[in-house]
Amino acid sequence: MPRVPLHPTFLTRPRPRPSPRPRCADDPYITAQALRRVFSLPPAPRLRSTFTASNPLQRITQPAQPAPRLRRAVHTLPQRIPGKEWPYLYKDFEKMGKHLDPFFKEVDGLKDKFIERLREAVAIPSISSEDARRPDVVKMGEWLAEQIKALGGTVELRHLGKQPGHEHLDLPPVLLGRYGNDPKKKNILIYGHYDVQPAQKSDGWATDPFTLTVDEKDRMFGRGSTDDKGPVLGWLNAIEAHQKAGVDVPVNLIMCFEGMEENGSEGLDDLIEAEAKKFFKEADVVCISDNYWLGTEKPCLTYGVRGCNYYSVEISGPGQDLHSGVYGGLTHEPMTDLIRIMNSFVDPDGKILIEGINDLVAPMTDEEAALYPPIAFTMDDLHQSLGSTVSIYDNKEDSLKHKMRYPSLSLHGIEGAFYTPGAKTVIPAKVIGKFSVRTVPNMEIDEVTKLVQKHVDAEFAKLKTKNTMKFNIVHCGKWWVEDPNHPNYTAAAKAVERVFGVKPDMTREGGSIPVTLTFQEQLGKNVLLLPMGSSTDAAHSINEKLDKRNYIEGTKLLGAYLHYVAGELK
Amino acid sequence: MPRVPLHPTFLTRPRPRPSPRPRCADDPYITAQALRRVFSLPPAPRLRSTFTASNPLQRITQPAQPAPRLRRAVHTLPQRIPGKEWPYLYKDFEKMGKHLDPFFKEVDGLKDKFIERLREAVAIPSISSEDARRPDVVKMGEWLAEQIKALGGTVELRHLGKQPGHEHLDLPPVLLGRYGNDPKKKNILIYGHYDVQPAQKSDGWATDPFTLTVDEKDRMFGRGSTDDKGPVLGWLNAIEAHQKAGVDVPVNLIMCFEGMEENGSEGLDDLIEAEAKKFFKEADVVCISDNYWLGTEKPCLTYGVRGCNYYSVEISGPGQDLHSGVYGGLTHEPMTDLIRIMNSFVDPDGKILIEGINDLVAPMTDEEAALYPPIAFTMDDLHQSLGSTVSIYDNKEDSLKHKMRYPSLSLHGIEGAFYTPGAKTVIPAKVIGKFSVRTVPNMEIDEVTKLVQKHVDAEFAKLKTKNTMKFNIVHCGKWWVEDPNHPNYTAAAKAVERVFGVKPDMTREGGSIPVTLTFQEQLGKNVLLLPMGSSTDAAHSINEKLDKRNYIEGTKLLGAYLHYVAGELK
Repeated sequence: MPRVPLHPTFLTRPRPRPSPRPRCADDPYITAQALRRVFSLPPAPRLRSTFTASNPLQRITQPAQPAPRLRRAVHTLPQRIPGKEWPYLYKDFEKMGKHLDPFFKEVDGLKDKFIERLREAVAIPSISSEDARRPDVVKMGEWLAEQIKALGGTVELRHLGKQPGHEHLDLPPVLLGRYGNDPKKKNILIYGHYDVQPAQKSDGWATDPFTLTVDEKDRMFGRGSTDDKGPVLGWLNAIEAHQKAGVDVPVNLIMCFEGMEENGSEGLDDLIEAEAKKFFKEADVVCISDNYWLGTEKPCLTYGVRGCNYYSVEISGPGQDLHSGVYGGLTHEPMTDLIRIMNSFVDPDGKILIEGINDLVAPMTDEEAALYPPIAFTMDDLHQSLGSTVSIYDNKEDSLKHKMRYPSLSLHGIEGAFYTPGAKTVIPAKVIGKFSVRTVPNMEIDEVTKLVQKHVDAEFAKLKTKNTMKFNIVHCGKWWVEDPNHPNYTAAAKAVERVFGVKPDMTREGGSIPVTLTFQEQLGKNVLLLPMGSSTDAAHSINEKLDKRNYIEGTKLLGAYLHYVAGELK
Repeated sequence: MPRVPLHPTFLTRPRPRPSPRPRCADDPYITAQALRRVFSLPPAPRLRSTFTASNPLQRITQPAQPAPRLRRAVHTLPQRIPGKEWPYLYKDFEKMGKHLDPFFKEVDGLKDKFIERLREAVAIPSISSEDARRPDVVKMGEWLAEQIKALGGTVELRHLGKQPGHEHLDLPPVLLGRYGNDPKKKNILIYGHYDVQPAQKSDGWATDPFTLTVDEKDRMFGRGSTDDKGPVLGWLNAIEAHQKAGVDVPVNLIMCFEGMEENGSEGLDDLIEAEAKKFFKEADVVCISDNYWLGTEKPCLTYGVRGCNYYSVEISGPGQDLHSGVYGGLTHEPMTDLIRIMNSFVDPDGKILIEGINDLVAPMTDEEAALYPPIAFTMDDLHQSLGSTVSIYDNKEDSLKHKMRYPSLSLHGIEGAFYTPGAKTVIPAKVIGKFSVRTVPNMEIDEVTKLVQKHVDAEFAKLKTKNTMKFNIVHCGKWWVEDPNHPNYTAAAKAVERVFGVKPDMTREGGSIPVTLTFQEQLGKNVLLLPMGSSTDAAHSINEKLDKRNYIEGTKLLGAYLHYVAGELK
């Protein structure tokens, strides 16, 4: 079978040996030369499908198609269009197709039970970044373990020790689980997290964040509904529906569910490194469901994420907070200095002003630019997710490029200043400004940090202030790009087509999922991001929700994927 | 008796009729012509004292004297130095002097009881800006009323209705009290407040903020110890010591103690206007003890305060907080816009960058400049209060000028952004930046607001952002300058010399006390600020304290003042 040309933005690096920590180590990366080499390959064979990402040259000549309206899964085989076949040989496709019908029917029948399961999960406020909630996080892990055991799986709650910097707290356990142990079957490693972001009704929620509330549009509101309890339960739902339908689950599942994803994933990297040759040894591929569609109608597969470098700048001077009347005009004020520094990072159009940063970004080629128009995404989708029309760009291509393959810098807030409603006449004594940079190929993490630190030092020196400045690296996580031509992705694409009746878009996520890189490096296996939620889910925000449709059809999707990947990996 | 020349910075405006609200109405103010007129007066008579503020020309030729070390009050009459007498005729000075000895002795004897009284007061957390603490504020008012009644005074707890914007809350009552009603005596109106700033031990206090804790340096730590419970109780202590010593209190006291001073003094202006011709009708002068010495050793009398204009700039755009990975680079971010605007207000050296503001300030004349060197204040004093050496200026004169007679602008903080410790990857949807301008003669309040708003609008337009900006005037209070040659001030100066053995410095306060202007305008009487606390008291900050010495000697001072003012006003 001829090798299909590599995706132009795919990293042509060898599968690395597990490298020693720290996480910001240098790796080889794609160069302009490699890109030119990629595109001087001979034209692809006639069997090339119209599948978007793998066939950029063909797509250039065809106009962008509007996104097809989503049809309810009709449980029929996808239509074979002569000359427009998958580039990969079908392997027992028809047989697997038929097996799926009873499974899909069972999922529909068990819908209410699945929603009840999600309601129980959401009710446990497993907020990993709040010390007081640690018992709830552990309770959630234990509840999840019980669910897996009830389905016939085995679970080990692996304890990771004390939380760094919070020595009075134990880290939540990582669930290491197995379902099935047939040596003839392939092994799929699935990862998710059972902890959630903080949430208080007073933040602005319309309903109680920890009571799953379904509205008339079938949206299920609750903290964790989409991030990440819905997807995690989707796997369990799929297993249960298989059992009740009498359909054999065609793979063994290796489960890795952690409880600190929203709080730095402390201890996870070390665990994965330790278990790479033990518990995770037989994994053939990895699948993670923890991100979102680009829009609200068309599913996607995600083969890349941006990295995230999070920094803080601390300015201090006075010995304690001062009265701004008694001392205003007499003293250097840390807030004035900090605002001056934070002002120099990025302009209102999103352009990063730190010298040298933009030079690190891989240049856009015509071939790559051609990938964006066909993606099913409209400015209306974006405005709906933003909740307003304050997008920087007025067209879809620029918006997608700046989400997927250009860096961004956001100012998050200031710790130590006056932050409540009302009026306080204070000169804060010590303020810490927080900001982060989203990184993309080919930005080296340490190089980015060096440039940012140099810039901050220079801006601080310009102030000629007597205050003291401290620059901190809070955390760094590198970007990740995967090979979307791998059978893991083919299988997922077939599953999407089977359940939703459309081919998925291939996307790169703007947000960061650091564990993807860890799995890739430690296990050397292909990692797939298979999202369940849609772009309006508002993860991390108020009124987080998961649509019933996405939950139930997503359960079918995760189950169907297992069948197709079993076929693809033979 | 020849009239002494007016202080060059004294406002030569006629006593105004009570003007209708709003508070930011225009008033006549000192012009350059008035200043020239002032200084073309014939030379002062030989009886001019060396008293600093009233004799600027004489002080020019004498070098600055170092601050005399404070001696414990020795209860002897001040030495009469021929040719350097008070410019005012002593009125029964020796008789009053002798009356004071038993009073002072009684104060010393009752010291522990007075400290206990302060301990009881500090223990009530009367935080007016926290809704949940409103019952404590009311309890504090009632406790104070009981204390006054126990001393033989009469009290009315005047209720002011609902709190604007918080219709579920009643405003704390204003205590209108009287002690003595002898028609032959003068009436002294004393004002103070019984509410306090917020305080939590987690803000950084070394001890519980609401438990008065005395350390080995005799400093009494507790929220409200100096602002303003110590001084308010100083009046009651003075009354009690008089009674126990068998010394007649030589004046009637009209008391006005409010419970909302730290939260906008809602309702007070209307009350004072309503009672100007009723409850406050007989007041001859006003005395307020609610500010601080310039340093830690020499008392002062304060005859001016800066005004305070507090503003906020609100930027909003996205419909809700956004994930900075998923949306970073796609959307205009309110934090970026706000930081850009706040950056344009003031530079790290304290210079206000808003066009037109500095032009409103009355120009410095040589005569005025000569007032500052003699004031007993060192850079060490300033550094001690700041808790560090980050003062902008390296000399005392510039520091004092920028505290007393130049404006300043401080950035207080941002509401709606990420403010807790840790790392949150959020794009805040709506942020409100808070800042305030301290105003001085001759800045008209409405003119300042106009210039600030014009500047904010212009800076926002430069951003070319799709976000929305809202400019709010939170509150405005005009600056105030009083006639320090009035007998009210003379009396206080004598009291200071009697108790502390030194003549006080004449100062203008950097912070604002809006009620001074209200009393001046509504009652048309001289208002005196007679501080008890010292510059290191850290009001509004953590570890607020009042020195035992300042409390006890301050009690003597307030009592002695009553005697001298009775004499001066005959």
